[in-house]
Amino acid sequence: MGEGSRNVFWQVGSVSREDREARRGHRGCVLWFTGLSASGKSTLASHVEQRLFDEGYFTYMLDGDNVRHGLCTDLGFSHEDRTENIRRVGEVAKLFAEAGAIVATAFISPYRADRDHVRDLMSRDGDFVEVFVSCPLEVCEHRDPKGLYERARAGEIRDFTGIDAPYELPEAAELVVETQDREISECVDQIIAYLRQHGYIEAAVSRASSLS
Amino acid sequence: MGEGSRNVFWQVGSVSREDREARRGHRGCVLWFTGLSASGKSTLASHVEQRLFDEGYFTYMLDGDNVRHGLCTDLGFSHEDRTENIRRVGEVAKLFAEAGAIVATAFISPYRADRDHVRDLMSRDGDFVEVFVSCPLEVCEHRDPKGLYERARAGEIRDFTGIDAPYELPEAAELVVETQDREISECVDQIIAYLRQHGYIEAAVSRASSLS
Repeated sequence: MGEGSRNVFWQVGSVSREDREARRGHRGCVLWFTGLSASGKSTLASHVEQRLFDEGYFTYMLDGDNVRHGLCTDLGFSHEDRTENIRRVGEVAKLFAEAGAIVATAFISPYRADRDHVRDLMSRDGDFVEVFVSCPLEVCEHRDPKGLYERARAGEIRDFTGIDAPYELPEAAELVVETQDREISECVDQIIAYLRQHGYIEAAVSRASSLS
Repeated sequence: MGEGSRNVFWQVGSVSREDREARRGHRGCVLWFTGLSASGKSTLASHVEQRLFDEGYFTYMLDGDNVRHGLCTDLGFSHEDRTENIRRVGEVAKLFAEAGAIVATAFISPYRADRDHVRDLMSRDGDFVEVFVSCPLEVCEHRDPKGLYERARAGEIRDFTGIDAPYELPEAAELVVETQDREISECVDQIIAYLRQHGYIEAAVSRASSLS
């Protein structure tokens, strides 16, 4: 093989983020849901994902179910391990955003520095949309769908956020979504409205029909 | 907030892999390119990605550029760190496949056990397509686009695959693509043909036009 043909062979042609976004008609970003256990992060994120999918957008969701048992299976819940967990999730979310997805992440992510680190990872302003899922501790503890608060109160679980580990409130979240005494559809509307107003997705609602 | 409304609120509706694949008209999978440094993995993977993108498929590529400096920035090149690197890449590739993407990965991944581990991670038969990028060591060393072989021979880089670290040949790769003395388009054709024959993508070639 000659040098000339080698150089032709090794020429790289790769698909850019702009190519992907132009194809899809919307921009990629990370919707970073943060809040206490049982505040409604995962539920809300999955409903937002469903709504966006139904409208024809490219979405994906990262949460404990598909990350803690996979990519981060080697990590526990110490401060150090939580930080590394959030760092990895942030890196993966960034890849999905680069691939053109609106990726929703649902992790407690209790430390402000960890969330800010993820924000700083992003390659473009506006890629990181922090969604604070706000709900009083006592309401979360009353919901307690997995009985985790009860076990934490009984001392069976250590380092549980809100009980014996801190939750550091977001200071400049793009969105604050209250989940107490609200219908989920209202909460979802609030988030979708933000995405429309800020140009992440189209202003018109009737995308899905043109795709079918 | 009453118990009844709580249960309605917390009902989960999430988008399944099947939903995504039905929307896109193709199945997700991982094209795992493995081979020596300078064998042509990244170039080939990026050209395959470009071809699939041009035909309207949802693709993404993971390689050293977007992983080693991000998700795996804490890892080096010892056997242990390579194994952890490949494990994480495998987990992320799996997430992209679940999201419905044809994700191409380009990593030397010299250890058979590591590649087999990634194969075993996948949730469906056929999700893992091992593509052995075959090229004689002396040809790779002659290409040496980044001068890495030269530095490895000079002892400036340790644990370099093919020089002072092993490359374990795939024993049952789905595809073996020779890159010596071949045009890149031929190599790409071979991979695309495999994807068509095995139902990953449509048999017809004229998808892109219907999307524009």
